[in-house]
Amino acid sequence: MASTVFDSSLFRDMFGTAEMRDVFSDEALVGRYLEAEAALARAQARMGVVPTDAAKAIDAASRAVKIDYDRLRRETENVGYPILPLVHQLSEAAGDAGRYVHWGATTQDIMDTANVLQLRAALGIVARDLRDLRGILAAMARKYRDTPMAGRTHLQQALPVTFGYKAAVWLSSIDRHIERIDQALPRILVGEFSGAAGTLASIGSGGLEMQKLFCEELGLHQPTITWHVARDGIAEAVTLLGLITGTLGKIASDVMMMSATEFGEVSEPFAPGRGASSTMPQKRNPISSELMLAAAKAVRQHVAARLDGMIHGFERATGPWHLEWVSLPESFLLTASSLANAKFM
Amino acid sequence: MASTVFDSSLFRDMFGTAEMRDVFSDEALVGRYLEAEAALARAQARMGVVPTDAAKAIDAASRAVKIDYDRLRRETENVGYPILPLVHQLSEAAGDAGRYVHWGATTQDIMDTANVLQLRAALGIVARDLRDLRGILAAMARKYRDTPMAGRTHLQQALPVTFGYKAAVWLSSIDRHIERIDQALPRILVGEFSGAAGTLASIGSGGLEMQKLFCEELGLHQPTITWHVARDGIAEAVTLLGLITGTLGKIASDVMMMSATEFGEVSEPFAPGRGASSTMPQKRNPISSELMLAAAKAVRQHVAARLDGMIHGFERATGPWHLEWVSLPESFLLTASSLANAKFM
Amino acid sequence: MASTVFDSSLFRDMFGTAEMRDVFSDEALVGRYLEAEAALARAQARMGVVPTDAAKAIDAASRAVKIDYDRLRRETENVGYPILPLVHQLSEAAGDAGRYVHWGATTQDIMDTANVLQLRAALGIVARDLRDLRGILAAMARKYRDTPMAGRTHLQQALPVTFGYKAAVWLSSIDRHIERIDQALPRILVGEFSGAAGTLASIGSGGLEMQKLFCEELGLHQPTITWHVARDGIAEAVTLLGLITGTLGKIASDVMMMSATEFGEVSEPFAPGRGASSTMPQKRNPISSELMLAAAKAVRQHVAARLDGMIHGFERATGPWHLEWVSLPESFLLTASSLANAKFM
Amino acid sequence: MASTVFDSSLFRDMFGTAEMRDVFSDEALVGRYLEAEAALARAQARMGVVPTDAAKAIDAASRAVKIDYDRLRRETENVGYPILPLVHQLSEAAGDAGRYVHWGATTQDIMDTANVLQLRAALGIVARDLRDLRGILAAMARKYRDTPMAGRTHLQQALPVTFGYKAAVWLSSIDRHIERIDQALPRILVGEFSGAAGTLASIGSGGLEMQKLFCEELGLHQPTITWHVARDGIAEAVTLLGLITGTLGKIASDVMMMSATEFGEVSEPFAPGRGASSTMPQKRNPISSELMLAAAKAVRQHVAARLDGMIHGFERATGPWHLEWVSLPESFLLTASSLANAKFM
Repeated sequence: MASTVFDSSLFRDMFGTAEMRDVFSDEALVGRYLEAEAALARAQARMGVVPTDAAKAIDAASRAVKIDYDRLRRETENVGYPILPLVHQLSEAAGDAGRYVHWGATTQDIMDTANVLQLRAALGIVARDLRDLRGILAAMARKYRDTPMAGRTHLQQALPVTFGYKAAVWLSSIDRHIERIDQALPRILVGEFSGAAGTLASIGSGGLEMQKLFCEELGLHQPTITWHVARDGIAEAVTLLGLITGTLGKIASDVMMMSATEFGEVSEPFAPGRGASSTMPQKRNPISSELMLAAAKAVRQHVAARLDGMIHGFERATGPWHLEWVSLPESFLLTASSLANAKFM
Repeated sequence: MASTVFDSSLFRDMFGTAEMRDVFSDEALVGRYLEAEAALARAQARMGVVPTDAAKAIDAASRAVKIDYDRLRRETENVGYPILPLVHQLSEAAGDAGRYVHWGATTQDIMDTANVLQLRAALGIVARDLRDLRGILAAMARKYRDTPMAGRTHLQQALPVTFGYKAAVWLSSIDRHIERIDQALPRILVGEFSGAAGTLASIGSGGLEMQKLFCEELGLHQPTITWHVARDGIAEAVTLLGLITGTLGKIASDVMMMSATEFGEVSEPFAPGRGASSTMPQKRNPISSELMLAAAKAVRQHVAARLDGMIHGFERATGPWHLEWVSLPESFLLTASSLANAKFM
Repeated sequence: MASTVFDSSLFRDMFGTAEMRDVFSDEALVGRYLEAEAALARAQARMGVVPTDAAKAIDAASRAVKIDYDRLRRETENVGYPILPLVHQLSEAAGDAGRYVHWGATTQDIMDTANVLQLRAALGIVARDLRDLRGILAAMARKYRDTPMAGRTHLQQALPVTFGYKAAVWLSSIDRHIERIDQALPRILVGEFSGAAGTLASIGSGGLEMQKLFCEELGLHQPTITWHVARDGIAEAVTLLGLITGTLGKIASDVMMMSATEFGEVSEPFAPGRGASSTMPQKRNPISSELMLAAAKAVRQHVAARLDGMIHGFERATGPWHLEWVSLPESFLLTASSLANAKFM
Repeated sequence: MASTVFDSSLFRDMFGTAEMRDVFSDEALVGRYLEAEAALARAQARMGVVPTDAAKAIDAASRAVKIDYDRLRRETENVGYPILPLVHQLSEAAGDAGRYVHWGATTQDIMDTANVLQLRAALGIVARDLRDLRGILAAMARKYRDTPMAGRTHLQQALPVTFGYKAAVWLSSIDRHIERIDQALPRILVGEFSGAAGTLASIGSGGLEMQKLFCEELGLHQPTITWHVARDGIAEAVTLLGLITGTLGKIASDVMMMSATEFGEVSEPFAPGRGASSTMPQKRNPISSELMLAAAKAVRQHVAARLDGMIHGFERATGPWHLEWVSLPESFLLTASSLANAKFM
């Protein structure tokens, strides 16, 4: 059973959503690895480097192969990375075509590309939820544009505002976050295929063409040069989540305060038993707000960790890279949960 | 399947150990909740507040109950905490004695106490590994006390040192960490039983005596006053891990560098295939060091998050508290992995 | 004398540059406040709300006023903010026109706008240095495109690369940083003029027109709505610095390693005495690289602090806002120093 | 003029105290360097390694020398460290005895020792303020032990508590912080005198005796082995500040909330004009609380940076070490300010 809240059978839906977990699950990850290997074979077939039939066989095997996860883990622990062990299983499943699997690629090519495919799905969810939230906040801004309430500075009542005005201020940040994601996507959704030291040296001629076709097969941008150790795109994705959960944390902070007994201006939607207290039936705890605030706190430290992880040594390094594997899923799970809570609220 | 590296079927043993996962697994956590509830009933029986037979029935049920985890999760999601839902199941299992379960306690009493029981186990593992590591480093310091090597400052060769000297410098930090844990334990291993707002108000007279017996049953210190919102003990535990993984990170950094091709002074123990490269058989990658360095990076951000989580509002708050549930398991898993890698190395 | 390295008479040029200090000095800041007050008066004169002569007098006084800094500090400490105390001095200097100073504005309008003017100057320096660095790296990539060296993964020699290739990888990140700044500027360089609770309520009609003219006078974008508590623009600026110093940290890490005695592939430019050692004349310490790496470490934690600072309560809060005043200057000073070191190197 | 808030003529007393700035000012630091050099000469005179008259002359010069700070800065920038440049000036001031200055020491010996002397002073201030605060809170706990108020969980009114109870919970953390500092001091207040690579090699025989006398002269503990790169003691000091400001942040959060208009339970002490608003005379802003909360936020990120700084390469490294020079003064200034605000409140 799980040892962290993200996969805990008790707590996982407070710190993530089923949809986002599906993006980052072991099966999804292995599925992305296989997707990348298949795309590589197809690209190489288009160049005539791999026989068309072999590429078809690899593509078919990548969908049909039944992964032996126990064996995969044992070999991964030893090698340090799952790609070689996976290539063994995929090759076996592809029969004669097996020898064409992973041709000219290095482990990180496949892993980086698979992570980008995950990022595409994950950022898609985030962008969709931001758009939903924009709709909700815009409706609130209109509906309550003339509903007066105390404006407060330093928690002291200052001048009157309206609740619609407050929603519109929140909305303005969401608008900018949507713009930020749109601008960042071309820097993030970039394939990786560069060979062992990033130079495509093992390919001989045609390496860049192969890279182009590989990216094309997956609907990703072609990199200007290998980004094995130029991780600013990945780091940027996490900083965006830091900004987004920061805004959601501000909204949560306002809502939580307004739902204090003494304020009594709003309360979270009522679900029977939600936020219930065994001893104090009068209470309605702002659970969603508190979780949004917690998500902001956790994600911001992942941002610092991710910036730390930019310091990759030379042409590859394990430590900072492994660190990405921690930060990416958790940051997205927390953001997804925070957005879901915001929409619920 | 798991969505983060800590429970990933592929990666979990790079970011934790089976032993430490067993401390923080869902089953272990629920087991600790039950242990706390049983201890409470026993303590109350000693005071005559609960019939001895009822306490015995609760104690027996706490060991025998088959938890329905699906039901537990559904109810937990709604309530926000797992204790009430668990009390339902435990009460049912305890039959007539069920109405005495959880008497006078609040959710956080049980959860805090359970977390402290986990901390006791987890810090025990850390302390044991530190002692093992001290033994290893002391032996190295003796064995290599006259093995000369270049002392380096700013990565430049400076003056000669010996490898034993280097090990002795590492050792000095480990010694201090052991001392730190010993000193901190009485502040950390403290039970919690204070009732809904921390005042033991629902107990009537005898509340402090009940608290004393409850702690005694569990072998924990009695608190001077409720620590529902005075989280410095928990935070201190994580700062200790930050200091420990910091030292291990420094050791790893030295080893990693010394194992660079150009230095060639040390290499990690050889295991067939470990750190293997598909294309470059000449390589021996310092995987353990890199993971230790990554653990240092991740834990230090958890420390900041944990300090953040000290800011609890009033008599209880969900957000900062939930944040503990993220940080504690992950910090300990990373530390355990780092210590295991250090010992392996 | 100074108590932190940033203004230390011994260390300040290791952690910043004179040019960047000039952007964030007390005088520069007060100058920006005065610039904003003058622009406000000019904008109001254009609307006929303030007599043209009064606006001229205020504008002239804003340039000529001799600030009594002792008095300013004493009053600032008491009020908590410097604007009212400064308005007193400016009003006195403006004679009869004094009563039109700061008309309709709230403290935060002036302070936010002044900070944005600082950001414009500071980001201008960063962007210029990035462009310079791009030029340097592009030249290096060309010059050394065929200079072979070992490509290294996990600090182990792997496959050959060229030094020009390595420079081109570094360059690719710099290119993206320049693009990021260009895209972010319209979200950052936005004026603030919204009145006490952000609603422009005190202005009566014409508030938005006044805001437009005010921004126009300063060459800033007009906000869609007040951003007193929507701080994602400010936070974004600091995340950009986190990404930039992350890349510079990676470059520094490579250079530092390559300049290790055992590698001996590069060394930092020679300046007599620089990196000198009293006892070890053979050494050439990579001081610049080490400082760049330290800057990356410090800025990444400022990013986390800045994301934390996004959680502003209601319509204004001091704590998170004051936190900006810590993070902004330090982050820019460290980035400026890091860029200067990169160019030197 | 200053470019950061810590030395800003406008803001410095919000982010520090004059007393703490005096500990970390340039003059104080240079004074500590001179103190260490003088102690070294006296210790060496006691061993007969340096003539007694020479030691006396050095000691006298260390007190009388008029430092040329411009020259010191220029030379420091070039060398990277201030000790050699300072030794030049001290030697000149000591006349014939000058050639005995700094004998057998390395730059980091003097700088580390000087920093420890600063830490002794700074931790002394912190411990004194904690004891003052303990007295204040204990008096509050007694005075208000029966003053009822709402206990609140999740910002919802739950059960009654008393204000004295609340103060007693705060107090319990302060008690533990005092204990933590007492236990940590022997690990922190340790002299450094180990020579260039930490081995005392340049001293010949008698090195450890010299180290013992040197520490004795300064009232510091003797290290078990050099801690040039074993920085857990320094890091521990900053983690303590993280814990302390965390508790103060929690207190501030409670006070701030209780002083909200809607709560109206407490307000910060009244000082005419303090927290005043130009447009809203009804307000009493909780400036002290907000600054305490901001200090908690800033210090916790310094803790992460300090843990990062534990990863020193080999026998010395500039980057992580320079990072200490940023973190130590700022962390202590913020803590001092936070404690002063707590006492004021």
